[in-house]
Amino acid sequence: MNNYARADIQRIAGYTPGEQPTMPRLIKLNTNENPYPPSPAVAAALAGLDWKALRRYPEPSGRIVRQAASLLYGIPESRVFCGNGSDDLLTIAVRTFVGAGEAFAFPEPSYSLYPVLAALQGAQPKPIQLTEDFNLPDDFAQQCAGARLVIIARPNAPTGNAFPKERVRQLASELDAILWIDEAYADFAEDNCLDMVDQFPNVVVSRTLSKSYSLAGLRLGLAFAREEVIFEMNKLKDSYNVDAIAQAVAVAALRDSRHLQITTNRIRHTREDTAAALKRLGCDVLPSQANFLFVRPAKAPAAQLFAQLRERGLLVRYFALPRVDDRVRITIGTDAEMQELLAAWHELDQ
Amino acid sequence: MNNYARADIQRIAGYTPGEQPTMPRLIKLNTNENPYPPSPAVAAALAGLDWKALRRYPEPSGRIVRQAASLLYGIPESRVFCGNGSDDLLTIAVRTFVGAGEAFAFPEPSYSLYPVLAALQGAQPKPIQLTEDFNLPDDFAQQCAGARLVIIARPNAPTGNAFPKERVRQLASELDAILWIDEAYADFAEDNCLDMVDQFPNVVVSRTLSKSYSLAGLRLGLAFAREEVIFEMNKLKDSYNVDAIAQAVAVAALRDSRHLQITTNRIRHTREDTAAALKRLGCDVLPSQANFLFVRPAKAPAAQLFAQLRERGLLVRYFALPRVDDRVRITIGTDAEMQELLAAWHELDQ
Repeated sequence: MNNYARADIQRIAGYTPGEQPTMPRLIKLNTNENPYPPSPAVAAALAGLDWKALRRYPEPSGRIVRQAASLLYGIPESRVFCGNGSDDLLTIAVRTFVGAGEAFAFPEPSYSLYPVLAALQGAQPKPIQLTEDFNLPDDFAQQCAGARLVIIARPNAPTGNAFPKERVRQLASELDAILWIDEAYADFAEDNCLDMVDQFPNVVVSRTLSKSYSLAGLRLGLAFAREEVIFEMNKLKDSYNVDAIAQAVAVAALRDSRHLQITTNRIRHTREDTAAALKRLGCDVLPSQANFLFVRPAKAPAAQLFAQLRERGLLVRYFALPRVDDRVRITIGTDAEMQELLAAWHELDQ
Repeated sequence: MNNYARADIQRIAGYTPGEQPTMPRLIKLNTNENPYPPSPAVAAALAGLDWKALRRYPEPSGRIVRQAASLLYGIPESRVFCGNGSDDLLTIAVRTFVGAGEAFAFPEPSYSLYPVLAALQGAQPKPIQLTEDFNLPDDFAQQCAGARLVIIARPNAPTGNAFPKERVRQLASELDAILWIDEAYADFAEDNCLDMVDQFPNVVVSRTLSKSYSLAGLRLGLAFAREEVIFEMNKLKDSYNVDAIAQAVAVAALRDSRHLQITTNRIRHTREDTAAALKRLGCDVLPSQANFLFVRPAKAPAAQLFAQLRERGLLVRYFALPRVDDRVRITIGTDAEMQELLAAWHELDQ
């Protein structure tokens, strides 16, 4: 049946987000959500909202959010750009920098949205294999030749490791293309690449409030780049892409850095405890700087373990893809949730 | 300086939304916002929000909004699609149906975002001149030949008229392309084209909560189409394009049809009174089915009148474009706001 979509679109399957099931008594460790609530300042911001003012369009650029981010990160407001979640930012990236037929490079394995975005734009996806230990190969820049946009996630998903920062800096200087550093998980890591925005005209760094700020339900992403790069991205964004409520809530969250520190510290602590426990069970656990672990079971096949955990109401993520189909990805929950997971794992991974 | 954007993007200027100034004591009649607050149910929805649940991703398709819309409009949930405002829907439309180099047709004058969306997609914009009285020419379908997507706004902006419904139905049957009917202003009109979604596989109708529901600050758009069309559009949307708060607020607003009826009736009434008063001042006022009037002053040049009104804190919209540069567009405000406007107009339009 003719559905009028262009042939390119009809051919592709689209992106499949992690399951959002509604089973009761589910421990949901599959989409890297934060187990702790957002800052109480979020509740106060909601209570203080002038709901009658919703009749007006929001400020188009998310200025109050950009101001709060500027203060927090010490980057001028003119170098901050707001998106309706980090997905909006990535879509804008591909549309701004990559024309139909042009190449867009990214490591593999990485965030499975990247090749989908390439396909939607009619661009040529250029996946570049990471090394055995999921690091950037020495000739990564050479393999990117011709690409108009290179996106790397740091920390990377689903592997959890952060490519060495000096290696990323070298990459920025080698590439004659935008190097977009997707730092969705950076608040859980030891360092980040925000300083490279000042250093390089071709670097963009993006963040999200979904993970560390516990606001996945809100949709707020931030990108940091030179003014001339933001100037072009502005043309691609919807005029009012971040609504007035999201702007107010995001400001409240960004200002409460104490809450951020407490919850991210707690998650890092739980992450290390869980990694140690899984290693004691004989699993191979990749070193993680994110809020998840990427784990090869000791004995059970990963797909089977995933299914059996799911039957017990423990939902983790399994990717039936080359190189990663022998592992499951576990979002770090509360200590109690991790105890339940480890108990089940111990029984099932035989 | 190299900003790495593709050449197509560097060449274009992007869309300029109507001014959102912060002057005190301004009567803002320039972006078709509603002068009345949204339903009080919106306040209740905000107060009842489980802010701790924001740590979770929202339901990806906006299911609760689709259910509410399905009930309200009598269209199956499977034929309802949610966007982050109607701009998100229009962007998705162009990306789904029009490839780079392909044609996208729309009337002229109409919503000035359409040609911008064509340029951003590298598509070929095909503006088709409306008749002298801003109606569809008899050969509109023939002029659309080859276009993959045809968007008409009904009521049209900035003219305010609604093309005859039977003429639109005829157009739907003649076109071998998607006919997208942008009904942003339909709640202020005498009729609408929602029934054509059942009748034609190539018709999409879109709505927004920005105008009649007084929720421009929220960003919530709805599209209605056949399942196979929505299937393709789903591939293009960001996974979680409508946030959890917007979903809850939109449901509350959609359920309060009494509030909608009261405020839209009031606006229609003020519109007719204002039109009559402007005609008495000697102006040419196009018949409007929207929440704005498109007016040629009696004596003063439109650009001059616009500037002088602005100096007095009365902000209307002026388009320095062929065929419409002799008029200003006035959003319908409260009766008191219209009285102030008319008093100033009377003085200035000499």
